[in-house]
Amino acid sequence: MVKGFAGSGRLPIIVALDPPIGVDPVKWCFRIIDDTLDIVSGYKIGLPLILDLDRKRDLEKIVGKMKGVWLRIADLKLADIGDIMVSIIRRLHGFGFNAFIVHGFIGYNGALDRVSDYVDSIDAKLITVVSMSHSGSSEIIDHVLDRLLEVALRAGSWGIVAPATRPEIIRGIRSRVGDRVKILSPGIGVQGARPSTAIKAGADYEIIGRLVTRSEDPRKTLLEIRDLYR
Amino acid sequence: MVKGFAGSGRLPIIVALDPPIGVDPVKWCFRIIDDTLDIVSGYKIGLPLILDLDRKRDLEKIVGKMKGVWLRIADLKLADIGDIMVSIIRRLHGFGFNAFIVHGFIGYNGALDRVSDYVDSIDAKLITVVSMSHSGSSEIIDHVLDRLLEVALRAGSWGIVAPATRPEIIRGIRSRVGDRVKILSPGIGVQGARPSTAIKAGADYEIIGRLVTRSEDPRKTLLEIRDLYR
Repeated sequence: MVKGFAGSGRLPIIVALDPPIGVDPVKWCFRIIDDTLDIVSGYKIGLPLILDLDRKRDLEKIVGKMKGVWLRIADLKLADIGDIMVSIIRRLHGFGFNAFIVHGFIGYNGALDRVSDYVDSIDAKLITVVSMSHSGSSEIIDHVLDRLLEVALRAGSWGIVAPATRPEIIRGIRSRVGDRVKILSPGIGVQGARPSTAIKAGADYEIIGRLVTRSEDPRKTLLEIRDLYR
Repeated sequence: MVKGFAGSGRLPIIVALDPPIGVDPVKWCFRIIDDTLDIVSGYKIGLPLILDLDRKRDLEKIVGKMKGVWLRIADLKLADIGDIMVSIIRRLHGFGFNAFIVHGFIGYNGALDRVSDYVDSIDAKLITVVSMSHSGSSEIIDHVLDRLLEVALRAGSWGIVAPATRPEIIRGIRSRVGDRVKILSPGIGVQGARPSTAIKAGADYEIIGRLVTRSEDPRKTLLEIRDLYR
């Protein structure tokens, strides 16, 4: 059985909540959360969903529904100057998120330094992107992976993001950072990687979206995926 | 008189709409826009304001108020995989924005290629960040400036973002890209650079926020700044 799985009785899966076009996003999220809250490690929400909500209060309701789950991640992949990122994170924290994804490439000074201090002060989790799942990640990002890791560690990141589509990157990162930080992996399912690929390469969590949420029975699909981790 | 200024009769200024905490953001934006609509080149809205709005419709109202102005910029500094960025830009375009700021760092394949195609298809403007105003920009971003420029040009960016806080970067970029792309410069005012610094270094537009919007009389302040461009 893979690391991190046995202890909590929960799957090392973070469900990405990306409602399809045309549905009521609040009802859709409620249904998925109700259905999976006791077996997953967390949920991740991105900008498309946030922009689809009619009222600000809807976001609060959706995140509020996640009570009891370990990770409530705002995945806005922030990449701005420090003050702007802090002002965004302050608002997101107000909606109930407790973990925030930012990019490492913006650097530490005047950027992640501020974010790190703020996230610490609210007892939340900083998650820093050091590699991405698309092929364009090899154009610039992969060439500076060492520096990105350095920035992520210097900022005291709780977790880093690295893609399941390229498990060799995950292995490389794990060998460099040891157990100091969690590794979260997107890229499972529709983007190409099979569930468990990232975990077996050394990741702590797999981020899975449509493969679960668009399946007929998300809970059943998750329990089927569970077998792949054994 | 500086380039780009004489023709339109408008200032080469994009006003960043960042309402202070505690005000009604819609009323605040309306007041600034009403006051300045005929003399500026555009407005820029970021995530803090978007997250402060009670209803989605408020964003539509604010952007709708900008009719007649050349640039209605959504500055979310997008840095995600292509499909996600397209789905965000589709929504932002629905709110009335006609220009979108993304990061060059994420690369072309599977990222800016998709965004570029989509932005072309809706006849909007792609603006790509190649350098930033904070000191952390020198940690990673500045080392790969040539590659970032390459990605920005390959994606057919209408404009690129480079900071007024470091005019030598603007000069270097202008000498490399010629007149193919517009250069937009943040970092004026509260972040340290004096208005006209970027324009004199070769930028086409200066992005100015609090220096104008928090002044007692934004219109008067803009008209005072106008003298610096002469």
